[in-house]
Order: sequence, then structure tokens, then C-alpha cells
Amino acid sequence: MKTLKDAFEHTLQDIYWAENALAKALPKVSKSVNNAELKVAIDAHLKETKGHIKTLEKVFASVGQDAKGEKCDAMAGLLKEADGLIAEASGHALDVGLIGAAQAIEHYEIARYGTLREWAKTLGHEEAHKLLTSILDEEKAANNKLTALAVMAVNKPGRKAK
Amino acid sequence: MKTLKDAFEHTLQDIYWAENALAKALPKVSKSVNNAELKVAIDAHLKETKGHIKTLEKVFASVGQDAKGEKCDAMAGLLKEADGLIAEASGHALDVGLIGAAQAIEHYEIARYGTLREWAKTLGHEEAHKLLTSILDEEKAANNKLTALAVMAVNKPGRKAK
Repeated sequence: MKTLKDAFEHTLQDIYWAENALAKALPKVSKSVNNAELKVAIDAHLKETKGHIKTLEKVFASVGQDAKGEKCDAMAGLLKEADGLIAEASGHALDVGLIGAAQAIEHYEIARYGTLREWAKTLGHEEAHKLLTSILDEEKAANNKLTALAVMAVNKPGRKAK
Repeated sequence: MKTLKDAFEHTLQDIYWAENALAKALPKVSKSVNNAELKVAIDAHLKETKGHIKTLEKVFASVGQDAKGEKCDAMAGLLKEADGLIAEASGHALDVGLIGAAQAIEHYEIARYGTLREWAKTLGHEEAHKLLTSILDEEKAANNKLTALAVMAVNKPGRKAK
């Protein structure tokens, strides 16, 4: 990697791997939570994540590249953290902990899409810039939903999922 | 971990490990960058990170706990990502890539301190809430500085550090 173009393509492959890894991990997270509203939010985010994967495939196509993933160590670490919580926490600690872990993941994605869409603009990839901005907006909205959920869950322990 | 108190103490140990790991990693990052302004920003952030470690020790004391770190898989992954860049990238790709990696780290910290300070408030830890908010504000300011630097670096490749 030497140029901005190289960095863009590498980071695009990185986030494509990350979104696919997240889509694989979310069903386990959904099964493990106690809070009903949190379960609904996670299931909705899984659907959104699958949409992001399809949008990223359009981004690859728009810059003339094949969609390809490259292991993203940061997302691997973030998911390992969530996995550790599922193994070590229960009850209220598990729910609030998983909301926190989910917000850390959202923030990671917000950082990456924020960077990628600016690079796309500099490189003259107008379509990629537009598509990446649409994902960025959804990640920001998902994080805002999680913040509202965190405030609710932290004050109402023990509301059970059906 | 079962209660919010357990989750708070665990996450505090987690971010304490993370800040210490970051303080150890930053000198290598500073040495590897080409862009002079980026080098200055990284060195300033190392100083700030050491300050956060001291502030976290005050947070531990304020809640009657010994300062103790527990491995944070997410930060380990984020730092592995930065290390990979140093190994694989050079020139402009390295500089813009490292700014991106640094922003991902800042966003991770913003997510964690945002969660921790709200938990501290709910638990009635007023002093911890105040201290964690002061770190959160510095992390947000650091991220804003990196955004400005990213815009500059992406458009001015090759400005060399002295």
C-alpha cells in the first residue's frame, strides 16, 4: 500500500470482512440477551447489516473491483469482547454490557465509514461516496437507538424477553 | 458479572488496560509516520493518554477499588490493525491509514467512556462520573483534531516530518 487508492481499497476489503463477521455473530448475541427491546434492536441491526453488505458490493462494483474481504483485526477484537461478555456475564450485567459492546462496534463502523467516504470523495468516486454516506447515516442512527436503549436498560433491570 | 456494578468495574479495568496498551504503542506509531503535523498530534496524544491513565487511577480510588487492568480484546485488535499498517503500508497510504486507525481508536474510547460515565452516574459515583466525563471530552477533542488532520493529509501527500 503506497497511495490513497491502495488505502481505500484495503480499508474497503477490511470493512466488508467486518460486516460479514458481524452478520455471523449477531444471531448468537440476540439469543443470549434478556431484555426484550434489546433483542428487537439486535434483530433489526442484523437485517441492516445484511443490507450494508449488499451496499458495499455496489461500492466495489462502482470502483471496478471485485467484492473481497480481508480480515479486520479490530472487528475480530470487538467481537471477541462481546463473546467474552456472553461467556462471563449474566442478567443485568450481560444486557447493559452487550449494549455497551454494540455501541463500541457502531463507533468503530462510524469511524471507518467516515474515513472511507472522505477518501472516496478525494479519489473522485462519486457513487461510492454516496453509497458509503448512506451506510454511515444508518450506523449513526443505530448508535443513537442504542444510546436510548442503554438509558432505558440501565434503569430497568430484569425486563425479560419473551 | 451479574450487576451493573460488576459491569462497571470490569469495563473500568478493561479501559485501564486499553489506555496502558495505547501508551506503549504510540511511540512506534510516531516514529513510523511521514507527515510532520501527524507526528506532533500523535506525540501530544501520548501525553494526553498518560494523563488519562492517571485520571483513571483517581476513578478507581473514588469507587474504593485498586487500579487494575484486564486485557481488552477490542483495543488489542485496534492496535494490531495499526501494526499491520506500519508493516504493510508506506508513504501517503501509511499516513492517511494511520490517521484512520487513530480515529477508530478514538471512537472506541468515546464509546467506552460514554458508557462508563453514564453507568457511574446511575451507580451514584458522582466523582467518577465527573472524572470520566473529563476524559470523554478530551477524546472527542482529539478525534476532532484528527478529522482536521485527515482532511489536510489526504490533500497534501508527501509533506515530510523533520
